[in-house]
Amino acid sequence: MPSDEEFVVTPWEVKGDVDYAKLVKQFGTELIDAKLLARIEKHAGELHYLLQRGIYFSHRDMNFVFDEYEKGNPFYLYNGRGPSGHTHIGHLTQFIFTKWMQDKFKCPYYLQLTDDEKFLFKFELELDQARFYAKENALDLIATGFDPKKTHLIMDSYHARTIYPLAIHVAKRITFSTAKAVFGFTNSNNIGSIFFTSFQAVPAFLHSVRVGRNVPCVIPLAIDQDAHFRVARDVLPKLGYLKPGILHSRFLPGLQQGGKMSASDPDSALFTVDPPEVIKKKLQNAFTGGRGNAAEQRKLGGQPEICSIFPNYQLVFIPQQDKLDALEQRCRSGEMLCGECKNICIDLATKFLTDHQKRREKARDKLNDFLLKEDELSIE
Amino acid sequence: MPSDEEFVVTPWEVKGDVDYAKLVKQFGTELIDAKLLARIEKHAGELHYLLQRGIYFSHRDMNFVFDEYEKGNPFYLYNGRGPSGHTHIGHLTQFIFTKWMQDKFKCPYYLQLTDDEKFLFKFELELDQARFYAKENALDLIATGFDPKKTHLIMDSYHARTIYPLAIHVAKRITFSTAKAVFGFTNSNNIGSIFFTSFQAVPAFLHSVRVGRNVPCVIPLAIDQDAHFRVARDVLPKLGYLKPGILHSRFLPGLQQGGKMSASDPDSALFTVDPPEVIKKKLQNAFTGGRGNAAEQRKLGGQPEICSIFPNYQLVFIPQQDKLDALEQRCRSGEMLCGECKNICIDLATKFLTDHQKRREKARDKLNDFLLKEDELSIE
Repeated sequence: MPSDEEFVVTPWEVKGDVDYAKLVKQFGTELIDAKLLARIEKHAGELHYLLQRGIYFSHRDMNFVFDEYEKGNPFYLYNGRGPSGHTHIGHLTQFIFTKWMQDKFKCPYYLQLTDDEKFLFKFELELDQARFYAKENALDLIATGFDPKKTHLIMDSYHARTIYPLAIHVAKRITFSTAKAVFGFTNSNNIGSIFFTSFQAVPAFLHSVRVGRNVPCVIPLAIDQDAHFRVARDVLPKLGYLKPGILHSRFLPGLQQGGKMSASDPDSALFTVDPPEVIKKKLQNAFTGGRGNAAEQRKLGGQPEICSIFPNYQLVFIPQQDKLDALEQRCRSGEMLCGECKNICIDLATKFLTDHQKRREKARDKLNDFLLKEDELSIE
Repeated sequence: MPSDEEFVVTPWEVKGDVDYAKLVKQFGTELIDAKLLARIEKHAGELHYLLQRGIYFSHRDMNFVFDEYEKGNPFYLYNGRGPSGHTHIGHLTQFIFTKWMQDKFKCPYYLQLTDDEKFLFKFELELDQARFYAKENALDLIATGFDPKKTHLIMDSYHARTIYPLAIHVAKRITFSTAKAVFGFTNSNNIGSIFFTSFQAVPAFLHSVRVGRNVPCVIPLAIDQDAHFRVARDVLPKLGYLKPGILHSRFLPGLQQGGKMSASDPDSALFTVDPPEVIKKKLQNAFTGGRGNAAEQRKLGGQPEICSIFPNYQLVFIPQQDKLDALEQRCRSGEMLCGECKNICIDLATKFLTDHQKRREKARDKLNDFLLKEDELSIE
């Protein structure tokens, strides 16, 4: 069926025009429905705008997670960041949503910085570069305002004392056949990349290991990472742990026509380290849903659904729904043209990112406070 | 050629009657010749009995190692122990030889205890069991008398902070194709076992990493482990490190007819933890090169070449060549029968192992002193 083959979604490649309804079927996940939203809202006291806007749109086992929650077994949070570059607005969206979850559910959060993954999958990337970006990305996490008492940064190559002994328990239950089928590996893949998924599985049960009882885990992440947890969800019960619940987000459109935000393409997105002049230039050059000329646009209105500026408002800069609706209305009606809209976005982005950058610089001294604590090396 | 297929030698399987001349050809190693022995003797001041007796019989690049030595670039030592059970006489032979090398060449020594390997390759073995044996095996190392200032114990699952970041540098350069060809992996192998060889490669350049310059490495090990270093010797130069030199030992015959010493078969060998009554029983039941009856043996003499008692003298209990020659002569001439010989062996083994066990118990407090020191977990 050629229509099914028009897009490819793996942890290392997203190609083609993704049909989310088909993807959900292909991966065997569930759409987040009104009932689940109501359940989240009931316990959180409100609904985050990224849920309201359908940016988080799919899930696995979140009803089980809330069953446990209602029985008095609250969950913890886990997700990751692949440090091959600086943090962009898409990554920040994940931090913003996860921080909201931590605030509302008062729960521990583990962020795994997979410097090993990026090193193993990118031939030209050195481990020291990945470690550099891991530290830089961690600053964005801290600047987002996570609770230092409840937040644990894992850097794979630093925390191997904790992660490796658990990862080999996962690895022992995954054959090369399975890894091949799920990730599309061939005989040419290096043996580190084949092993890597074992590391990504560990934080999905690490908190249970640390506290000595089974605590449900919730993983908010972009849907391309789902493959890792299809495997992990199969293995974890064999080790006596719960399958993690997952909240999937959509891919985020980049600033150019048809592309996606990509850490390896600086022009594809606003990055948290961008200075005002770069923000201005990127947004001025961004692809919009404008028409051929001003007169036509006054008549037909703009098209936010294909615009690359609009998602920036949706994801980060305009959390208030009434404000976003008003702006959308002014665009669709032809009242506001792209030039004005870009200037609004430049102002909002500059203010937001300048403030973020101040918090980010202050975070440099706090990095060690956020590191996951490990046992001393000693043989009892 | 069926004759080539009569034996199989991999790190996880030794099958059939090993033809060492063929094995050396198959693996592409070199026999240790008189010239190399003379070179070792010249620098060590003497020749160890395990070299004189041809127990260490094959090598890779030891002439390069001594070229460097003579230029003022001395080597360090590395080998490993797979902790799936207690230490037997065969393992002890490796410690005894390596300690002699350390004494004579005053060099650092790294012992890698591969608890991860044993866990990943033995389905029924738990990691805690492998860790238990790793600690027990370490006691035998300490009891052998290594210099605590120059000896570094690595337990893979404890020292992953140090080993994993280096292992992924090795792993990045090994494809599944290569691992498959060298180790005979199939799609059914678990992804941890496929990755493992990367861990075994690390101590072959770890000392160079720690001191910040290329130091030659010498690995005295049983020839079945050679496959790991065929791969490592290919990868290390790509990372800027030297190929390690290797000294290969033969497999050691077990106490039963035709078998080999095996950590997973308690009756196949004397173990360092065996109490006197077990030593006595094992040696009394051991297979010998005796004849059908006493009269025949008096006439024809015994056959040390097929006896399972004789190797125990060769390997550990009679290091003095003149004493061993005298005993062999008494056997071959028919003067000494197997009963007497077994009693001699029981006395020597009991004395040796009882002394060893005393030192072994005292070693329990010293384990932490021998552990490889690691950097603190901190992000600078």
